Amino acid sequence: MFNEKMYALGSKRSTIREIFEYAKTRSAEIGADKVFDFSIGNPSVPAPDAVNEEIVRQVNQTPSVVLHGYTSAQGDKGVRDTIAANYTRRFGVALSGDDLYMTCGAAASLTVSLHALINDGDEVIVFAPFFPEYRVFVENAGAKLTVLQSDEKTLLPDFNALEKALNPKVKAVLINSPNNPSGVVYDEKTMQTLCDMLKAKSNEYGKPVFLISDEPYRELIYDETTKVPCPMAYYDNVLVCYSYSKSLSLPGERIGYIAVCPKAENAKAIYAAVCGAGRALGFVCAPALFQRVAAACDGMTADLSVYKRNRDLLYNALTSYGFTCVYPDGAFYLFMKAAEEDAKAFCERAKKYELLFVNGADFGCAGWVRIAYCVQTEQIERALPLFKQLAEEYGL
Amino acid sequence: MFNEKMYALGSKRSTIREIFEYAKTRSAEIGADKVFDFSIGNPSVPAPDAVNEEIVRQVNQTPSVVLHGYTSAQGDKGVRDTIAANYTRRFGVALSGDDLYMTCGAAASLTVSLHALINDGDEVIVFAPFFPEYRVFVENAGAKLTVLQSDEKTLLPDFNALEKALNPKVKAVLINSPNNPSGVVYDEKTMQTLCDMLKAKSNEYGKPVFLISDEPYRELIYDETTKVPCPMAYYDNVLVCYSYSKSLSLPGERIGYIAVCPKAENAKAIYAAVCGAGRALGFVCAPALFQRVAAACDGMTADLSVYKRNRDLLYNALTSYGFTCVYPDGAFYLFMKAAEEDAKAFCERAKKYELLFVNGADFGCAGWVRIAYCVQTEQIERALPLFKQLAEEYGL
Repeated sequence: MFNEKMYALGSKRSTIREIFEYAKTRSAEIGADKVFDFSIGNPSVPAPDAVNEEIVRQVNQTPSVVLHGYTSAQGDKGVRDTIAANYTRRFGVALSGDDLYMTCGAAASLTVSLHALINDGDEVIVFAPFFPEYRVFVENAGAKLTVLQSDEKTLLPDFNALEKALNPKVKAVLINSPNNPSGVVYDEKTMQTLCDMLKAKSNEYGKPVFLISDEPYRELIYDETTKVPCPMAYYDNVLVCYSYSKSLSLPGERIGYIAVCPKAENAKAIYAAVCGAGRALGFVCAPALFQRVAAACDGMTADLSVYKRNRDLLYNALTSYGFTCVYPDGAFYLFMKAAEEDAKAFCERAKKYELLFVNGADFGCAGWVRIAYCVQTEQIERALPLFKQLAEEYGL
Repeated sequence: MFNEKMYALGSKRSTIREIFEYAKTRSAEIGADKVFDFSIGNPSVPAPDAVNEEIVRQVNQTPSVVLHGYTSAQGDKGVRDTIAANYTRRFGVALSGDDLYMTCGAAASLTVSLHALINDGDEVIVFAPFFPEYRVFVENAGAKLTVLQSDEKTLLPDFNALEKALNPKVKAVLINSPNNPSGVVYDEKTMQTLCDMLKAKSNEYGKPVFLISDEPYRELIYDETTKVPCPMAYYDNVLVCYSYSKSLSLPGERIGYIAVCPKAENAKAIYAAVCGAGRALGFVCAPALFQRVAAACDGMTADLSVYKRNRDLLYNALTSYGFTCVYPDGAFYLFMKAAEEDAKAFCERAKKYELLFVNGADFGCAGWVRIAYCVQTEQIERALPLFKQLAEEYGL
């Protein structure tokens, strides 16, 4: 009577959502200040002032039929030119407005890119841990998702595994750095090795293996020494999927873009397929007012010092208690080894201390948990003694 | 290398877009005041003041992380409750916030509804003339589009044709009243007859034939006597697809909703499938700020008196010149019989007078043209003598 696959997607509550609901119920029972919810990846710092200032400026200065009117399907030309010029200046990669397609945020960037590239029977490779919606997006576009485990210590790609997995059916490798859920950032050597391998395989197959780079956390890095390499500087067959949700703290407004590397094989045709996919999925254009806000605030960030403080506090404390964590160079997540083999049991044990986090198995990584630190610093400070007790219970 | 179907959708310029480009070129040659472009269905009157006032109010009063944060996937609960209460009050049909799913505009309302309902091999019926993107949306969701001609005089559904076309593979009938491109509004009798037939066929097949009602022009009617019947008052298996684009003149902001009739068979499961389809297509949530604006301004309209004046002026003049037009009760389009059998040749002839409109064949109706009157009234006044000359050339 209806589409069962869509019904399943819509009726199965995600684990993260379940924890969120549990936290609400539990807060009502014992008080919100006694429940420590580290499950949700929702920006906890306000948008930079420039965002609201630009909204008001546009409302006051731009005629209504222009401001709120349709833009072209790929986005307002002036907006795209501005963002492309910034991209070229920031990353040293020549990009024009005609290589950019404005989207309704990161999820749209991904679904549109995948539908543009994928034919039935194609394969897309991701490295665990990975954002679980990738499976929904890839499979719904008609491809098979192949999940490769990462290096156990660094959580960077295992290139032996990749070498073995690559085959002519692979349409794309989908990466996410800084990573949700691990916070790991691909360094230059990792990006170089990955891109060299894709280049070699593309030559071997006589057709490109695309690199789709999902970069909503691109600006969320905390150390002077951390750099997020721009994939287009290493490889041509690249689609960058960007969103302003995390950098500008406006995840509800749904604004981002796809950048098709102009040097990609058949770049113009791929860009046309992106436009076609956006049309077929029902996107029409990205929200008009926020296209202008994005152009005005492109490259700015919300106050990241809160996330840095949270990360340092949490990482230093947890490792000092004996937990094993991967140092998170970016994003606002910390990936921690469960203190027993069964991470689900570990999450349940933590619940006794009112500590709520997400089982790494949800991200394709058994034996780990994700701790989202986009919370008030004070929540972390009050939670630390409980983390300590949890460590002690395990004899760490 | 990429998806050819998406490439085709993205690289083939629509006829309307072609006319728009021609108008730009021609304007540069002879002056914009001498070119009369009636091709684009873009609201020409500003949004009501309440829209920008609400934007500024929200920006000033709502904390940034709340205002610009994720809402739940189906939309903010308060927003949905408000809009549902208005719906119940305005149309006398009980609707709750849990029956509403906020979308990124009309196209999203349609793609999400269709993906929620359709299984491969299903069929969807539309009546010509129809908005051409319906074919893209229906086929991309995996169904076959069946186009039925309407009554030649009234452009209302031909129920004999519908009776013959209905079969157990038909998942839905998709209607659009007030209609783009004809401006025709289904009266109560038409809605009653349609719904009675769908009810009977649903009983006969032992499963519902859904009615999908695409209603972006619902509020754009001009005569005291014109009523737009609410389909849920006539039939249970209904999904209403709404958008604020035309009523509030904000087509670029992408905000609308799907209302699943709570009395539909398996209404809760269908609603879940809607949520799943939104997720699979990459929508996450409708733009957050404009969800609030929609709730605050729901039921308001831009200044429709301009459209009414334009319609009256154009309809009265064109019929007095001898053209055959269907009286447009709503929307901002007028459907006119071409003065020769070949509507394409007629459009070319009109071009000599710098009059630009769209061939009805693009909407599935040979022998007609669409004239969009969402323009400055003064443009119509200056164009009328040219329409008169065109009529005279044909000896009308």
